[in-house]
This record gives sequence, C-alpha cells and structure tokens, in this order.
Amino acid sequence: MAQRPVPDVVVRRLTQYYRALLSCRDRGLEVVSSQMLGEMLNVTAAQIRKDLSYFGGFGKQGIGYNVANLLEHLKRILGLTETWPMALIGIGNLGQALLHYRGFAREGFEIVALFDSDPHKVGQIITGLTVHADQQIPQLIPQLEIKIALLSIPTEKAQEAADMLIQAGVQAILNYAPVTLRVPEDVWVRQMDPLAALESMTFYLAAAKETP
Amino acid sequence: MAQRPVPDVVVRRLTQYYRALLSCRDRGLEVVSSQMLGEMLNVTAAQIRKDLSYFGGFGKQGIGYNVANLLEHLKRILGLTETWPMALIGIGNLGQALLHYRGFAREGFEIVALFDSDPHKVGQIITGLTVHADQQIPQLIPQLEIKIALLSIPTEKAQEAADMLIQAGVQAILNYAPVTLRVPEDVWVRQMDPLAALESMTFYLAAAKETP
Repeated sequence: MAQRPVPDVVVRRLTQYYRALLSCRDRGLEVVSSQMLGEMLNVTAAQIRKDLSYFGGFGKQGIGYNVANLLEHLKRILGLTETWPMALIGIGNLGQALLHYRGFAREGFEIVALFDSDPHKVGQIITGLTVHADQQIPQLIPQLEIKIALLSIPTEKAQEAADMLIQAGVQAILNYAPVTLRVPEDVWVRQMDPLAALESMTFYLAAAKETP
Repeated sequence: MAQRPVPDVVVRRLTQYYRALLSCRDRGLEVVSSQMLGEMLNVTAAQIRKDLSYFGGFGKQGIGYNVANLLEHLKRILGLTETWPMALIGIGNLGQALLHYRGFAREGFEIVALFDSDPHKVGQIITGLTVHADQQIPQLIPQLEIKIALLSIPTEKAQEAADMLIQAGVQAILNYAPVTLRVPEDVWVRQMDPLAALESMTFYLAAAKETP
C-alpha cells in the first residue's frame, strides 16, 4: 500500500494520527489542518505531512484534511477494516482488566480464546469464554485463525508461552511481561512494560534534580 | 551526568539494557559483551556502545562489560538509586492490577496514594491504602512529595485529572487512557495504550497479507 518502506517510528505515529482524528470526528470536525493535528500530538505539521506522504497525498493545500476521508484511509492502512481475533494468555488481575477493556471491540479487536496454566482457572467461564490450559494452544490457535496474542503472564513463563504461540501461528504479541522476547524476524512484538516507561521518565526527573 | 544531550530514543534503550543486565546478573554472569547484550535485545553491538558512550566509557575492549558495575551506573543514570512515591488514579480492574504489580517495588517505585472519582470507592482501604476523592489531589500530592502518577481512568476524564496532578506538582505521568495528554514542556508522559500498540502491528500483518 505504501510506495516505499515505512519506518517503524512512522507506523507508530500513524496510530496517533488515527486516534487524534477519531477525537476530531467525535467533536464534529469535518476538516482538520496539519497544524491543528500537530498541536494535539506535539508533532510538527511538517512531520505529519511527511509521514502521510508515504501513502500518497491526502490534504488540500490551505484547506487541510477531510477528517472522515483520512480516517478511512488510515483505517485501511493500519489493517483496521478487518476483525482481528486475539488470544489472551494469563487470567490474573491484568488479564481480567484486558478482558473487560471495551476499547478493543471498538477497533475490531476481539479476545476469542483464554489460556492459563493454573489448573484452578482452567475450565472457568469468564465473559462467556472458557479458560483453556496452555497445552491447548497448538490446537486452538490455528483452529480459531488467531494471529495476535496478549501475554499477561509472569516474566519467567513469557518466552516459553511466546514460542508456543508463534509455533501455532501467532504473528503479533502484545507483551505485558517485563522481558524482551526472542522471536523470529516475521513476528512483531510490542512491549507494554510500565517499569521501562517509568524508568525512561525518572531519567529526566533525576537529571533535573542534578541541574536545578 | 551525560556529557551531551541524550536523545529520548537512547533513554528508552537504556531501560532495555538495564533490564537485560538484571537478567544477566540473575543468571550469574559477571561479564557480558556488547554482542551478547545486542543479541538479547535485537540491537547492534555498535548501537549499544554508542548509546553508552553518552555517559563515558564502561566496557573494556575485547573483554566486555562488568555486569554489576554497569548495572550500578545505569541505576544511577536512570534515577533508580532513590525511591519514587507514586499516586494511582483510578481503581478499576487495571488500577487493581497495577496496585498488585510487584515489579514496581523491586525498582524503587511505590504507590503511596490512591484516588478515584467514584463515591462508592472513596474511603475503601485497598492493600493498606485509603482511596481518596480526586478533590484531595491538590492537598495530598505535595504533602506526600509525589512526582509520578499512574493514570488508569477513562479517556474522557484523563485530561482533567492530568491537569490537576500537574498543578499539584506531578512531573511524570504513566497514562493508560487512550488519549494524547496536553502537558507543559517540563512534564513527561508515557502512553500505555494497548490499542495503539496493536494497530502498529496490524499495519504489518495487513501489509503482509497484501503481498504474500
């Protein structure tokens, strides 16, 4: 769809543009300028125009972007015109929070299979879904055509679970365990690590203390 | 501490190096090469050496890094030699998960104050902490010298809560609401947005489908 390879950092910004445009639409805006989008996201207008240029021209000089039109394009570019069935691995506090998160359905993501290694949890029914044992991953993932997994299990079990999931056909993992997963080149991992995020902020807080 | 300005992307990688070194230490390794660190993290050895050079030289040519020594340095650089009291705003499923997350304490982060706008939750005691009304933010944040807040509340309430927190002295926000917060230049925000993370992966999954 893109005319040349798109850097990962651009892909990540596209998701921000998409989010900001949704908010424009919800506020009833029909047209938005790159300046205004930029202000919403702390990105320069030039950066936005450059990022979008990977996918052809969208805006009109001096007029801006048609919100509905650009949303439709970004939706297609980000693969959000289809529905993505997902597996949730680990039904602890965090797993429960993910299971009840309503944002997923809105964007076409749907948790359709639950897995846990705890025998006490296996067989339970949560939000209409049966909790399966990890051993059923190889059978159920291909059967349900699941390509995306949410990993909310302890660090020490994360790599093993990831290996099993990838073997079964998973191509994208949202990893909540604070560990860098080793995966093949054609598998995507995004790390949801609150510690790393906190540490990358205390860097600045500590530096500011030193030079008041 | 750094001899020249450190790009944010480098700061984020430092947290990964720190995590990888902790895992080396736990495995009993005393020395690690930049090659080995790089393999653990999918980063080139040259990149690691370049990133660390912002803070002076650490490794010895042909020998590698002393794990304990580099850990100690990174800990100081990332501000982890001190304890960071944190406020948790929003005690839903996700808030509960964060409250029970044991990783924080290990790195010196401690949730010391809970806030929620739900009158039914205010006054409850969870893990030894009283849930306060949002209205108490202006009083309690400075009193407890809190500089970091975890925001696990719905999108529509996030900006207002952030404004209140920043006004009260918060300088770093870990934001779980899927919205880009508008904050002053001297305030840091990290977005923990599972949707954006998923969308930045479906981009690649959708693209791969188009060009099989």
